[in-house]
Amino acid sequence: MKKIINEPKEIIEEMLIGIVNSYPSLVHRVEDSRVVAKNAPAKQVGLVSGGGSGHEPAHAGFVGDGMLSAAVLGDVFTSPTPDQIEIAIKEADQGQGVLLIVKNYTGDILNFEMAKDLAEMSDIPTEIVVVDDDIAVEDSTYTAGKRGVAGTILVHKILGNAAKNGASLTELKEMGDRIVAATKTIGVALKAATVPEVGKPGFSLEDDEIEFGVGIHGEPGYRREKLQPSKELAKELVSKLLATYDQRPKKLGILVNGMGGTPLMEQFVFIHDVLNLLNAEKINVAFRKVGNYMTSIDMQGISLTFIDLADENWQKALNSSVTTISW
Amino acid sequence: MKKIINEPKEIIEEMLIGIVNSYPSLVHRVEDSRVVAKNAPAKQVGLVSGGGSGHEPAHAGFVGDGMLSAAVLGDVFTSPTPDQIEIAIKEADQGQGVLLIVKNYTGDILNFEMAKDLAEMSDIPTEIVVVDDDIAVEDSTYTAGKRGVAGTILVHKILGNAAKNGASLTELKEMGDRIVAATKTIGVALKAATVPEVGKPGFSLEDDEIEFGVGIHGEPGYRREKLQPSKELAKELVSKLLATYDQRPKKLGILVNGMGGTPLMEQFVFIHDVLNLLNAEKINVAFRKVGNYMTSIDMQGISLTFIDLADENWQKALNSSVTTISW
Repeated sequence: MKKIINEPKEIIEEMLIGIVNSYPSLVHRVEDSRVVAKNAPAKQVGLVSGGGSGHEPAHAGFVGDGMLSAAVLGDVFTSPTPDQIEIAIKEADQGQGVLLIVKNYTGDILNFEMAKDLAEMSDIPTEIVVVDDDIAVEDSTYTAGKRGVAGTILVHKILGNAAKNGASLTELKEMGDRIVAATKTIGVALKAATVPEVGKPGFSLEDDEIEFGVGIHGEPGYRREKLQPSKELAKELVSKLLATYDQRPKKLGILVNGMGGTPLMEQFVFIHDVLNLLNAEKINVAFRKVGNYMTSIDMQGISLTFIDLADENWQKALNSSVTTISW
Repeated sequence: MKKIINEPKEIIEEMLIGIVNSYPSLVHRVEDSRVVAKNAPAKQVGLVSGGGSGHEPAHAGFVGDGMLSAAVLGDVFTSPTPDQIEIAIKEADQGQGVLLIVKNYTGDILNFEMAKDLAEMSDIPTEIVVVDDDIAVEDSTYTAGKRGVAGTILVHKILGNAAKNGASLTELKEMGDRIVAATKTIGVALKAATVPEVGKPGFSLEDDEIEFGVGIHGEPGYRREKLQPSKELAKELVSKLLATYDQRPKKLGILVNGMGGTPLMEQFVFIHDVLNLLNAEKINVAFRKVGNYMTSIDMQGISLTFIDLADENWQKALNSSVTTISW
């Protein structure tokens, strides 16, 4: 394993301090916790997200004005504990309650629900939006139902804008569930990630082999094949995504997400192919974003997210400006 | 070689279209050219940068209000041609002349100087700022003198702000040379990049070996060693950088730059170590930035840039907001 680290067990602590000390004008650490919170909280419903580490910049990179109030960092690929989530909720609460945005993994769901119960004992109204955008497989390694992956970033962005504009907790919960239903993601892996404490790749692929539908923790996908040109990968992922919508979307937002080890060069070649396909299908693409947003440490691969922009406000929210480290 | 591409010879064309079609509200392609230009040019001195591709998001990602007017894309690791640079100059000129920001490689210098001559034949006053921030070695593979690397991004940012605020071509040239003199970078590589048309890594390192001072095209560095903890890498790079200043800087800006294949997790662990060392040295760090800005395709490694912020305006310029794809 070749990594720029010190002791693997110290990574989260050192990374967390690295983040807040690099951007002290934007975020701070809630003392002695695993919580990165926005400076100068606004009078609005608080938004909290988080999960296992290893997906950087998610989620601490999306804390800031117009997106998240706070992010909780678990160990690598491991849910944060309920007490840490509770700290984030208390930090985020400005008297109007707190919405938790959680990726659909069994451990995360359990711990965020326990934290919700704890917060409500302190009279903080709390709701949970569960993101399960990954259409690749049902009931994966750490999941009942579908996994939550890169589409989560778009959920942060749209709800962050709505919360800033004064939406109530009830409205945000209802809107969040609608956004999740409109958001679909699928990925392809060329090379597995290496978890630092493990020291070797989480799975292995032949030199000329790829796997469709791999999860952001290396969970198995749905098919292995020989490496194909970007055009062919785009065809596979676009057709899978379009097939999941009951009604073909008239207007889409799309996110091409790098998994950590895939350079931007390849991501831009890939989106070029995706946009060509959607153009041929006469689907209006009203929002596009390309880069490393929900990574899997150093995995080589990409994911493609579609969001049906039937609601005009969502498009505006995606294009609104925010003050975060990484959007 | 495992990459998400189509034909290697089509990469630049496809990537360029991918970039402008992903962010059409910010940038456009000058027709039939290799030039990505800002929409709605302002009445100011134009700023043009560019060079070989493979360093994404440099330089097209830094085109926009407050940074570059246009970027010229060469083939992978190959200078753009003088005619393409001339197109960028003509696009960027708003009657007040154009400043070219060029990384110090023999091919780039030659071609940007020829383009300067061509532009002056069309009565466009043009100046060149040459960036040679890499302190690792003198007279490298493609360079007479020192190489130009990640510090170039800070030069774009400070000059971009000054140009927006009305600085003249003469003022920008003089300021640019001073910024370059204050900016020092050094890197370390864990694994070489693979140029798509070549199909295999540009150099090889043992499984437990790193190389200090490698260039952004895989040019040799100054020492190979066994892999060390991040703390030790930070010590080496920080001490090398500080030793190059005649007077120890009182106030620094720092950039930790990922080379394309190194995840943010490691970059934040590394900056944590760098900040600890500078804190122990009682050096005030007034600006920090972390991420993939000047990459070497999929190289695993990082670089560390220091800029002496003796000039108060430079700090303000680094913190000013811009409208680009990637700052």
